Amino acid sequence: MFRYKITIEYDGTEFFGWQLQGCLPTIQLYIEKALLSFYGKEVKIFGSGRTDKGVHSLGQVAHFDLEKKYTPHKICEALNHFLRPLPISIISTEIADSNFHARFSAIKRSYIYKLLNRSSPPSLQKNRVWHVVKPLNLEKMQEASKYLLGNHDFTSFCSTDCHAKSKIRTLNNISIIKNHDLFEFFLDSRSFLHNQVRIIVGSLVKVGKCEWEVDMIKKALEKKDRAAAGPTAPAHGLYFYKVDF
Amino acid sequence: MFRYKITIEYDGTEFFGWQLQGCLPTIQLYIEKALLSFYGKEVKIFGSGRTDKGVHSLGQVAHFDLEKKYTPHKICEALNHFLRPLPISIISTEIADSNFHARFSAIKRSYIYKLLNRSSPPSLQKNRVWHVVKPLNLEKMQEASKYLLGNHDFTSFCSTDCHAKSKIRTLNNISIIKNHDLFEFFLDSRSFLHNQVRIIVGSLVKVGKCEWEVDMIKKALEKKDRAAAGPTAPAHGLYFYKVDF
Repeated sequence: MFRYKITIEYDGTEFFGWQLQGCLPTIQLYIEKALLSFYGKEVKIFGSGRTDKGVHSLGQVAHFDLEKKYTPHKICEALNHFLRPLPISIISTEIADSNFHARFSAIKRSYIYKLLNRSSPPSLQKNRVWHVVKPLNLEKMQEASKYLLGNHDFTSFCSTDCHAKSKIRTLNNISIIKNHDLFEFFLDSRSFLHNQVRIIVGSLVKVGKCEWEVDMIKKALEKKDRAAAGPTAPAHGLYFYKVDF
Repeated sequence: MFRYKITIEYDGTEFFGWQLQGCLPTIQLYIEKALLSFYGKEVKIFGSGRTDKGVHSLGQVAHFDLEKKYTPHKICEALNHFLRPLPISIISTEIADSNFHARFSAIKRSYIYKLLNRSSPPSLQKNRVWHVVKPLNLEKMQEASKYLLGNHDFTSFCSTDCHAKSKIRTLNNISIIKNHDLFEFFLDSRSFLHNQVRIIVGSLVKVGKCEWEVDMIKKALEKKDRAAAGPTAPAHGLYFYKVDF
């Protein structure tokens, strides 16, 4: 068997997320369908992380095994051919070690959350950014974000239907960059809880709007209660950025 | 009468360009419809420049006159309200002098052309960039672009159905920036001929692919014949960037 590692970019707008869910249109379903068309057999693929309905990817990674050896270029061309015209693109392919696993070998996952802060609605960035009208205070959000850095119980910043046994995670980096009216939140962790990035952004935006004091983020973290954190920011501003192995 | 100046961002993908063409879906049509809904009377708007089917805008400007005085904020909110959910957004509104004219007062128009240079098709940037697979040589395109700077007869770089009396234009700036696999071409001129930016980009890409020598651009310019220049780059990579007055 030969193990292949692929890196995938997608526009999540029209999909029900990454994960296979029967015949619902998911990214995994379409890549497996493309593999079937190319290889002639059903092949299961394993992704580095699930993404929800509407979430985008700049660098999701997946692996799968084939009995035949192909050049990475051949795999990439074939998958992109069969994926056409869907907005799913295989941006790189490598032959991986047989012990490589897209999910379990990952040591860092990075996300970007994009937010457009202006009164006018987005046009070119529709479904690509969260549109927030009320002016945001960058410095306050940056200050508040520091409470989240490091190892914490993130129960408050996790969907109530998250099935992870432990809600303890280590947030290695959280930085916020403003470029004109575009805010970008960068977050890194070995792994994230369900909706963690979106609840963090939703909570920081409460601070940015001056509806919450900066230390509300600290208090929310301490309460270990989802109700203590802010709203879940919409899916369409979130990008699965990259995975380190 | 009060004259209003609006700046408009749009995703051109689903429109037949800027200019009114009966009841075809054009940007001008929808803004005039939104004005009718708000103001209750038909109002004609005047744009700074036409954009073709599929071409986007980051900063198209238009003006119109109303008998009543409104705050710029009110106009902006009302138009965006009635334009919803179309990907057309009024990003700023000002009250202008009565002698201001979006087309005739413009002293500089700027365009950006975006091109994705990689083997994999675009997903998130679908309909936002020209996808060119063959690797492009940035330095050769930059060198070739210098022949186009300044005052020239651009007959070769102009659509054969262009009705401009004179094909002489002054290209004030042409610069090409590469960021990973994204190339951005920036062009400034008081005014452009029909398809001028797209033919310039299409010709420079011939040089970038090493299918043409750098001096073919100079030769094409001298021939004053559309057939001497390269192909017209696709509309969906082009952005009307801004207008200076």
